[in-house]
Amino acid sequence: MRDRFLRACRRQPVDRTPVWFMRQAGRYLPEYREIRGDRDILETCRHPEVVVELSLQPLRRMPLDAAIVFSDIMVPLEAIGIPIRVASGTGPVLEEPIRSEADLRRLRPLVPEEDEPYLLEAIRLLRAELQVPLIGFAGAPFTLASYLVEGGPSRDLARTKALLHGEPTIWARLMEVLADLCVTHLRAQIEAGAQAVQVFDSWVGTLEPEDYERAVLPYARTVFQGVADLGVPSIHFGVGTGELLRPMARAGGDVIGVDWRVPLDAAWERVGTDRGIQGNLDPAICLAPWEVVRAKALRVLGRAGGRPGHVFNLGHGVLPETPPDTLARLVDLVHTATGEPGEDAAAGAR
Amino acid sequence: MRDRFLRACRRQPVDRTPVWFMRQAGRYLPEYREIRGDRDILETCRHPEVVVELSLQPLRRMPLDAAIVFSDIMVPLEAIGIPIRVASGTGPVLEEPIRSEADLRRLRPLVPEEDEPYLLEAIRLLRAELQVPLIGFAGAPFTLASYLVEGGPSRDLARTKALLHGEPTIWARLMEVLADLCVTHLRAQIEAGAQAVQVFDSWVGTLEPEDYERAVLPYARTVFQGVADLGVPSIHFGVGTGELLRPMARAGGDVIGVDWRVPLDAAWERVGTDRGIQGNLDPAICLAPWEVVRAKALRVLGRAGGRPGHVFNLGHGVLPETPPDTLARLVDLVHTATGEPGEDAAAGAR
Repeated sequence: MRDRFLRACRRQPVDRTPVWFMRQAGRYLPEYREIRGDRDILETCRHPEVVVELSLQPLRRMPLDAAIVFSDIMVPLEAIGIPIRVASGTGPVLEEPIRSEADLRRLRPLVPEEDEPYLLEAIRLLRAELQVPLIGFAGAPFTLASYLVEGGPSRDLARTKALLHGEPTIWARLMEVLADLCVTHLRAQIEAGAQAVQVFDSWVGTLEPEDYERAVLPYARTVFQGVADLGVPSIHFGVGTGELLRPMARAGGDVIGVDWRVPLDAAWERVGTDRGIQGNLDPAICLAPWEVVRAKALRVLGRAGGRPGHVFNLGHGVLPETPPDTLARLVDLVHTATGEPGEDAAAGAR
Repeated sequence: MRDRFLRACRRQPVDRTPVWFMRQAGRYLPEYREIRGDRDILETCRHPEVVVELSLQPLRRMPLDAAIVFSDIMVPLEAIGIPIRVASGTGPVLEEPIRSEADLRRLRPLVPEEDEPYLLEAIRLLRAELQVPLIGFAGAPFTLASYLVEGGPSRDLARTKALLHGEPTIWARLMEVLADLCVTHLRAQIEAGAQAVQVFDSWVGTLEPEDYERAVLPYARTVFQGVADLGVPSIHFGVGTGELLRPMARAGGDVIGVDWRVPLDAAWERVGTDRGIQGNLDPAICLAPWEVVRAKALRVLGRAGGRPGHVFNLGHGVLPETPPDTLARLVDLVHTATGEPGEDAAAGAR
């Protein structure tokens, strides 16, 4: 198995900087659009053979250093009976949001082998196919809570914050339940074969640091501690987290994923060099001409400075308008630019 | 005239910390909703007497230290003939976005007295009514460009960034034209009576610092330099600008407006104490119970530390769901907490 991704997660030396992309199995690929069509993403996730196919598609196009199982952070919530519709282009919509003590009762414990067998089956099938490590994932408690509370897309998360501040007891209970769900969901994926996990706290960057520390960090920590004994590397990712990188690192994660707003070297300093760092090319850059993409990617690599522990990625998911060929060239660039000269044919090709 | 807002902008000592709210004339007020109804905001802006009424409404409810003329950052663009529809709840939509050299020709110079006489008339009328300073405003070149290029609401500004990176010559020309527009628009407002101006670079926080410095800062600087000789204080505001505060301060602004993601003291340190600071209560907090609002507001004031140059505000616009009474109590709280004890009756009321 090509293990440079796992080695980088553990801050061990690597032959080349590993690279994968958030949402690498996604709508920017014509072969993905052909299979998905207009099908609901949660419905799509229930078919292991489709999940396997979608997860493998990007690897057929480019020598990515990790696969990520095609799934959605809402999968375990739908699996315990919360009705969710993922509207194309806008995000998950819940007809009945979770906002009260009574609503909490709708969140029952997850029993992965019964509730989401298709996901575990897909992971087992994928492991048999893959030559690179497989990443499992979960939404972090805060980000899941934001969807449950808002009931639909929201820019300001005002209802979520109102609950967090106005109903601290309900908030704490909700976060506990979601942290448990997240641990159960991740453990099942690891036991089925996932060799690393990423925790997406995508929207946590809307919080001020002191609220993060008080009302989010403890539950994020529960998640990372809850999978620590299984010995697979964990990645802790969020968007707009410039002011939160220190507390996020304290909450957990062998690798901290950062977006493009903070230069990678500054981010790594905040996170601490006892952690790996993942990122951080702006996905919007991939819509620019190749010379721009190349220069920006080399800048990211330059800031990583060749220090062990860098996993190259975008700062957020691949945008649907991205030309697949740009990503393929990007993978080659990262490999070529960070390999020993002469180590393989590609190294001289620049 | 109650001048503590202007004094604070100039970092002079004040009797109380001044307070106003972005979007204080807005949908959270029932009397505003009654007048606006479903009318397009740009259509509403064309009636000076309506603008005056909407601008004055919040001041009748609470002793704000500044008024801001009711308008929209898209007004000068529509005024030069760009067809724009501001969709309720989503934002400005342009049927024909600006993306090419040829499109640039659609942007002609603004002649305020001919193109937006209603705005200048509203400012003159307001000055006759007001006991507090009147703020005029404009969208900064980057934020205006983002609307022109995207043609509609966008979370990632991918097209804007693609133009910025892929077509640097068109980008530079677009930003020059918008900087000129912005200067002309602001100068006309000041000459009509505006006693301070705020430049909204609301979406600039989606950029990484080096792109900001290269492709945005020079044009923002043109704007601030272009109004400097008129001697009114200027405020430079953006959202999610934690990493951009230093270059934004270099671009200009007597006062830098910050959102809630950065604690006020940390933000002020980045901006430099030769500038004032405006902010930075999370508007979502105003949907929480009063005791939460109170504690958070006192925390902001504590971080400002009584240093001259603080203008209390939210970190972004008032949310439509905000109870008006919460804002009124907030104004009183800021005044009471920062006044000399015994200076007026309210000071003892805590």
